[in-house]
Amino acid sequence: MADSFDLRCPVVTPMNEDGSVDLDGLETLVDYLVSSGIDGLVPCGTTGEFSALTDEERRAVVETTVDAAAERVPVMAGVGGTAVGEVRRHVSEAEAVGADSVLVVPPYFGGQSSADGNEAFFRAVLDDSPLPAYLYNIPQTVGQELQVDAVAELADHDSVVGIKDSGGDLTYFGDLLRRTPDDFEVHQGWDAAYLPSLAMGADGGINALSHVCPDAFHEVAEAVAGGDLERARRHQRETIDPVFEFCRDHGFAPSVKAALAHRDLVDSGTVRPPLDSLRGEAFDELVTVLD
Amino acid sequence: MADSFDLRCPVVTPMNEDGSVDLDGLETLVDYLVSSGIDGLVPCGTTGEFSALTDEERRAVVETTVDAAAERVPVMAGVGGTAVGEVRRHVSEAEAVGADSVLVVPPYFGGQSSADGNEAFFRAVLDDSPLPAYLYNIPQTVGQELQVDAVAELADHDSVVGIKDSGGDLTYFGDLLRRTPDDFEVHQGWDAAYLPSLAMGADGGINALSHVCPDAFHEVAEAVAGGDLERARRHQRETIDPVFEFCRDHGFAPSVKAALAHRDLVDSGTVRPPLDSLRGEAFDELVTVLD
Amino acid sequence: MADSFDLRCPVVTPMNEDGSVDLDGLETLVDYLVSSGIDGLVPCGTTGEFSALTDEERRAVVETTVDAAAERVPVMAGVGGTAVGEVRRHVSEAEAVGADSVLVVPPYFGGQSSADGNEAFFRAVLDDSPLPAYLYNIPQTVGQELQVDAVAELADHDSVVGIKDSGGDLTYFGDLLRRTPDDFEVHQGWDAAYLPSLAMGADGGINALSHVCPDAFHEVAEAVAGGDLERARRHQRETIDPVFEFCRDHGFAPSVKAALAHRDLVDSGTVRPPLDSLRGEAFDELVTVLD
Amino acid sequence: MADSFDLRCPVVTPMNEDGSVDLDGLETLVDYLVSSGIDGLVPCGTTGEFSALTDEERRAVVETTVDAAAERVPVMAGVGGTAVGEVRRHVSEAEAVGADSVLVVPPYFGGQSSADGNEAFFRAVLDDSPLPAYLYNIPQTVGQELQVDAVAELADHDSVVGIKDSGGDLTYFGDLLRRTPDDFEVHQGWDAAYLPSLAMGADGGINALSHVCPDAFHEVAEAVAGGDLERARRHQRETIDPVFEFCRDHGFAPSVKAALAHRDLVDSGTVRPPLDSLRGEAFDELVTVLD
Repeated sequence: MADSFDLRCPVVTPMNEDGSVDLDGLETLVDYLVSSGIDGLVPCGTTGEFSALTDEERRAVVETTVDAAAERVPVMAGVGGTAVGEVRRHVSEAEAVGADSVLVVPPYFGGQSSADGNEAFFRAVLDDSPLPAYLYNIPQTVGQELQVDAVAELADHDSVVGIKDSGGDLTYFGDLLRRTPDDFEVHQGWDAAYLPSLAMGADGGINALSHVCPDAFHEVAEAVAGGDLERARRHQRETIDPVFEFCRDHGFAPSVKAALAHRDLVDSGTVRPPLDSLRGEAFDELVTVLD
Repeated sequence: MADSFDLRCPVVTPMNEDGSVDLDGLETLVDYLVSSGIDGLVPCGTTGEFSALTDEERRAVVETTVDAAAERVPVMAGVGGTAVGEVRRHVSEAEAVGADSVLVVPPYFGGQSSADGNEAFFRAVLDDSPLPAYLYNIPQTVGQELQVDAVAELADHDSVVGIKDSGGDLTYFGDLLRRTPDDFEVHQGWDAAYLPSLAMGADGGINALSHVCPDAFHEVAEAVAGGDLERARRHQRETIDPVFEFCRDHGFAPSVKAALAHRDLVDSGTVRPPLDSLRGEAFDELVTVLD
Repeated sequence: MADSFDLRCPVVTPMNEDGSVDLDGLETLVDYLVSSGIDGLVPCGTTGEFSALTDEERRAVVETTVDAAAERVPVMAGVGGTAVGEVRRHVSEAEAVGADSVLVVPPYFGGQSSADGNEAFFRAVLDDSPLPAYLYNIPQTVGQELQVDAVAELADHDSVVGIKDSGGDLTYFGDLLRRTPDDFEVHQGWDAAYLPSLAMGADGGINALSHVCPDAFHEVAEAVAGGDLERARRHQRETIDPVFEFCRDHGFAPSVKAALAHRDLVDSGTVRPPLDSLRGEAFDELVTVLD
Repeated sequence: MADSFDLRCPVVTPMNEDGSVDLDGLETLVDYLVSSGIDGLVPCGTTGEFSALTDEERRAVVETTVDAAAERVPVMAGVGGTAVGEVRRHVSEAEAVGADSVLVVPPYFGGQSSADGNEAFFRAVLDDSPLPAYLYNIPQTVGQELQVDAVAELADHDSVVGIKDSGGDLTYFGDLLRRTPDDFEVHQGWDAAYLPSLAMGADGGINALSHVCPDAFHEVAEAVAGGDLERARRHQRETIDPVFEFCRDHGFAPSVKAALAHRDLVDSGTVRPPLDSLRGEAFDELVTVLD
């Protein structure tokens, strides 16, 4: 476990109404996020719609994030891909533009891969990696859980420093904590599991809703650290959970972007297909939940 | 939320080697459980193999449990069934033999029932119920989650006082806490989720592993109440979680019965089909985990 | 494989508007079904809502069906249950009232039972059975597929003569045909799979939609037997499939009962909870599909 | 429906033992497949491990296949990707190297995308497409079924000429046939469903096992066309199904490559991670199934 709790934001990729990437908007957003007290930035994650970006766009998004962060907070670049050669190229580019670490998702056209097969994929990607790496469990989009056995093996790899778990299964999360060394970082990525994960001993959170209600996350962390579970529950239940419930029903990237647009923090709530931008009644409902 | 934490045991149904119910063994086991500091007994739950017992056996098991408990702790009787008429009969019999409350599972030959359909089932079962009732969410055997919407509606029913949630999904558990009144009791039934559930504000636990390591459950509850999360984690991870992992892989009723037989607390680890009794290597592995 | 194709009806249990069983209505319905050319009757199956009936009601439904059939067609009685002792009692009662065979579903509060466990359950139920028995695969309500390995073992059992497969997975269905002896009967219970199952060599169908469009089923069987696949496809696609699609979306028992009520073949479309009776727009849509 | 049945091979990508692509081996393999009577070639599909290849490798594989086919049979190039811009680039490259059509899989890092979202993705990819396109349903690796509603809408698109369905669900397959125009081609990609799909009116098959037992596929097609279902069943059950069962358990690409290596049709059975190459006992078992 790390010494102090660490909250990072999986940054959305702002887009213009025609769907092109808005790098200026990203710069402004990064400034806002840093000023809100976030401990780190994670561009090109799932909320960042990495899988809908071309290679050139992904490089530009990471570079812009690094430049805008200006060493105030570290940048963990998402480098997801299904081919070892492509992912290695993304890692090199992340290093070239100044990212501090990378976030690597298992091959997501894999169906039910074996633990050995997933481990072999990560070893092929990360041997001699120029940057430290975090594994990334997100079964709802990958199609399977990254096996705890594979994580436990990879925890000893020189380049692997931790994992982001966005699956929302706290039994799995507990198994990660139990079966990896103390200095292996375990980050919670499922916002509804924030409080219980802190109680279980999580090292940090990489949470999409830190775009929307960063203060509530800080309050929960402080309250848990201070032993005031009642206060922690209040912030989790009253602030984080209602927004989370909306996002789960309507999609995280579309909902977070719509919330940011509603607050004039980005110009447009546009997302790329297969995601649907939030419109009409759903947008009105979001405004009610936020206000 | 209740004022103090409440740990109940979903009692196994001891069986002789030929598979017949061992009521004398049940009496002895109840004495042991009460002496171990348990706050309540739940016969004819899932761990009690209710679905493998005939109606006559179920009545005898509840009656024996009530008599052996001798008012030292309350008895919540499992009354699972799929036909309204049958479940109502089980409720009447539970009342007749002296149970304090009942635990009612949704109709488990239902596939994907609507929230309205499940709610209608519970209303038909519980209108004018002679005993207070707990709902029971256990999707892994029922085939679906009892919808939070249905629970929220039923929380206002005169006879409904709480729920046991054994699904292991803490987002669902959090939704229960958030969407029901404060005096509606929410009990955790998935042992691996014990610590985080306490942190989230659970009212109690109905945990199969309280047969095996009751002290660890008490330690966790005390530590959480006292704000010592580090101590709570130690007992959860070092004592409860390894046994839980074994049970999840080998079945709860077979594993718990085998553990009790190993400690001479019941005569035999026999279970009924479709469950398989624990034997050979699996049994040896359990002994290693326990000792 | 049997010599000629065999179509049986999994008879609904007619109910009065207050939800009580309408045995007179059942008698009339049986007469109608026999006159429509059906080869057999299957009361107390899934479409017959067996799981919502008390033991007394189940006995009465089977007895009424047998009496009304008056030996014109055989009766296969559903005897589903989760406790060996209960299922054996249902088998005895089916024999006592004159049923010709029984249909036995795996224990449906079982979650993920092993193949050995399921096999042990069926052996305990069927050893010395007074009636020949059909196994019943219906994972959508049981929670798991009855393993092909278990079926292959049970195919040798003296009392086991065949299986009804309602899972809709034709790879599984093909495995059944391939891995059981030629005289083991394999019946298709998923109406949308009727034509392809005949092509694969099914021995029969036990199809809920035979209540609604029996002629189409006869046409498909005749056309396949005569090598006219084009004609078979026409009847399957134009008549059976649209009704099937409606039923899949709205439930088989509610939809079939509503269709029968619309045609005055039963007095009411009432079903028991957790099923919802078909009403309003959904009912109007059904009428459009039927007419 | 097309006038005559069409069997295409989703060609594996031969690799050297160090995992590099063996383009010479691919050339030889294409010659063998054409001589075996296949009606078309599909490089860079799932069996071709497209998701494990870099962009440069994918281009080389398609080009080599086109050149080796030498206009004897058409080439449908897999162009899978998750970003619209990337997939459009793959389509352009497929056209540049001479492919006849493309096969487009839904975005596979999408989780549960809406029908509208999937439709929007395909429209963005295929508007003004230089090549005719086939949709590709393969939920086991994509994480969701491509909705029939989306397919029905896209069937009218100028560039969309058909679909390959590898999901193995024949109810879905029947819905495709029922809800698309007669000239929309529906191809079966799940080998175990070959016979029943022909009976249902499929236009063709794109089947990995055509690498291994092409004659059996031709026999089944001929037998169904001639009305001899008994003969068709014999070839499906005795030849195709046992190999299929092995492949389903051990992976299609690893098993097919091992079978080809065993017959000296490729130099090595090597696959890329996360797939595991077939070795030891599994390989011996395959040899038994094949011989």
